[in-house]
Amino acid sequence: MKFSILRDRLVESVQDVSKAITSRTTIPILTGIKIVASEDGITFTGSDSDISIESFVPKEEDGDEIAAIQETGGIVLQARFFGELVKKLPMDIVEIEVVNQFQTMIRSGKSEFNLIGLDPEEYPHLPQITEDKVIRIPADILKNLIRQTVFAVSTAETRPILTGVNWSIQNNRLNCIATDSHRLAQRTAEIETAADAEYNIVIPGKSLNELNKILPDTNELVEIVITDNQVLFKAKHLLFFSRLLEGNYPDTSRLIPTDAKTELIVNAKEFLQAIDRASLLAKEGQNANVVKLSSLANIPGAIEITSNSPEIGKVVDRVQCKSIEGEALKISFSSKYMIDALKVLEGMEISIRFTGAMRPFVIRPVNDETILQLILPVRTY
Amino acid sequence: MKFSILRDRLVESVQDVSKAITSRTTIPILTGIKIVASEDGITFTGSDSDISIESFVPKEEDGDEIAAIQETGGIVLQARFFGELVKKLPMDIVEIEVVNQFQTMIRSGKSEFNLIGLDPEEYPHLPQITEDKVIRIPADILKNLIRQTVFAVSTAETRPILTGVNWSIQNNRLNCIATDSHRLAQRTAEIETAADAEYNIVIPGKSLNELNKILPDTNELVEIVITDNQVLFKAKHLLFFSRLLEGNYPDTSRLIPTDAKTELIVNAKEFLQAIDRASLLAKEGQNANVVKLSSLANIPGAIEITSNSPEIGKVVDRVQCKSIEGEALKISFSSKYMIDALKVLEGMEISIRFTGAMRPFVIRPVNDETILQLILPVRTY
Repeated sequence: MKFSILRDRLVESVQDVSKAITSRTTIPILTGIKIVASEDGITFTGSDSDISIESFVPKEEDGDEIAAIQETGGIVLQARFFGELVKKLPMDIVEIEVVNQFQTMIRSGKSEFNLIGLDPEEYPHLPQITEDKVIRIPADILKNLIRQTVFAVSTAETRPILTGVNWSIQNNRLNCIATDSHRLAQRTAEIETAADAEYNIVIPGKSLNELNKILPDTNELVEIVITDNQVLFKAKHLLFFSRLLEGNYPDTSRLIPTDAKTELIVNAKEFLQAIDRASLLAKEGQNANVVKLSSLANIPGAIEITSNSPEIGKVVDRVQCKSIEGEALKISFSSKYMIDALKVLEGMEISIRFTGAMRPFVIRPVNDETILQLILPVRTY
Repeated sequence: MKFSILRDRLVESVQDVSKAITSRTTIPILTGIKIVASEDGITFTGSDSDISIESFVPKEEDGDEIAAIQETGGIVLQARFFGELVKKLPMDIVEIEVVNQFQTMIRSGKSEFNLIGLDPEEYPHLPQITEDKVIRIPADILKNLIRQTVFAVSTAETRPILTGVNWSIQNNRLNCIATDSHRLAQRTAEIETAADAEYNIVIPGKSLNELNKILPDTNELVEIVITDNQVLFKAKHLLFFSRLLEGNYPDTSRLIPTDAKTELIVNAKEFLQAIDRASLLAKEGQNANVVKLSSLANIPGAIEITSNSPEIGKVVDRVQCKSIEGEALKISFSSKYMIDALKVLEGMEISIRFTGAMRPFVIRPVNDETILQLILPVRTY
């Protein structure tokens, strides 16, 4: 194997595939990046066996030469060292050559690295996925879908299925749901696919977080292929494979209340800042992160957010709502869950619908039916 | 105590004095910030008993009103919570009032915090320093002095005196020296002071690091007052007290070689980048962070920097020097020490003078006699 490549493209590909690599693996070769030079270009692969990422650098793009392949072949190089060193190479062009068995020279200007590589034949094969029904969605919408749901997955391993995000596809509509059983995030979107395509899968939250980091922030279409135990995301020169979680995702539809006793409409950012301040004094003790929200009988349209820590003090914050309708309100909840939910709605006017101090409440943007956030309150009154 | 103050000035003072505060203190009241409102303005104090910082906010500055004092008095508030909350206050003006014993209200817009404070009478008194001979030095030069020496102090507690920087003052000249016995950093500067002022003190490295963070990057004069066991730095509205280290600082002058068998002149930045790359493969094992430097007989003016890790591989980097004079060179040293030394010389052309593979070598800027860096080599050849 022998090729030269533009350093910036090499750095980008190495950083992308490194997202899949962990040093805590039981398969030593997976701490490496597999590099394969073919006639058409160079393929980089990283994997932790749950997630696999493949990045391709073509010889030419838009008429510009990006890489030149002198000899095809492959090698596996330690991700940790290789990743650090490519960033520090002095010149714009890098030459990589397997010189002697698995010894690999990396040259750039007057710098010459000689790394001990591993046999690429030993590297596990990526899942074979046959493309049946392809789903298409713009990358920026996909990133939003992920961002607006993935934070709500469970981090506890007691119910592994809840560490993933449930994607169900029906009638050209994708519905994403994440819940840790204390709060729930839901987002739907139109997708391009065969009309009869129906799927119900659970994608690990970790996979979606990594995917979100490497997808471009453009409206370029991403293709999604789903099999029994794998999902494949295909963007330009990029393949992202993730294993799916096994098991049945709980039916969450009946958790979401349809009626409301109190509804308030408020600016998400102002509300977020008030909750953030109130949570400052709610950091420790039994009611860690719990804040209280009450409507104020004497000031129309105002709500009060309070928290209290016997040893430190208390905070009282007031927010003016656009409107409050229905019964008087008094409810306590986790400021962390509220802050997480409000962050993905920032800049929007939101409606919060309550059905009682011990019933879950629903947060939605006023003019957008595709997003829903649900939070279970905490008993303190 | 009751006053109002511009939030940005409050935040700045609280952040400055917080630099002295640690949560690991055996004196509970020192986890707080002391706030005293007098007729002229408000004084904030933070201390860990080694370092004490006082920041003053005057009522008026350049004709602008910054604070208004309704009632004089004082309070001590928990630095951790107070520091976080002032940053998050919603409006430009903050009102602080001790309402009931030590209960303190902090109001801004519709936010109201009620913190449980402590008795300011219990707060330890700052050292009393009588100004005898005052030393004056511009803040930006003082910051450079600190930056160019403090990194070389020892972090080991086996010889406590080496955890500080030795400042000696004689004939209107300040000489700063730091060493951990493997490397040494020295910087001298002209100062304004009484001609007969003579001092020889050791200032804890930690104190100088914190001082460096809060000094402005301007040529405003800083006044320095030295006593037997304290040093006081006075900038505009800011007092910084540090305890001095007790004991005699070793005489380092005879460590610095005056002759040289090989001298090379090289660009500090290019040399730094090459050392940085070479150190990538020298991270672990017996010779952690050790790189080798050799002159190349066949390429005039070139030096080679190499490192080697039996399991990972090796790197060979070459740097073109402006000149190399004297004997052929072959020496090993810690890449970390070299990187530390080169970072404070970045952008300069430097001279490195060697007197043998096992003798300390000296790095200086070519056109600046005030800075000297010395490194002890490592035996590997």
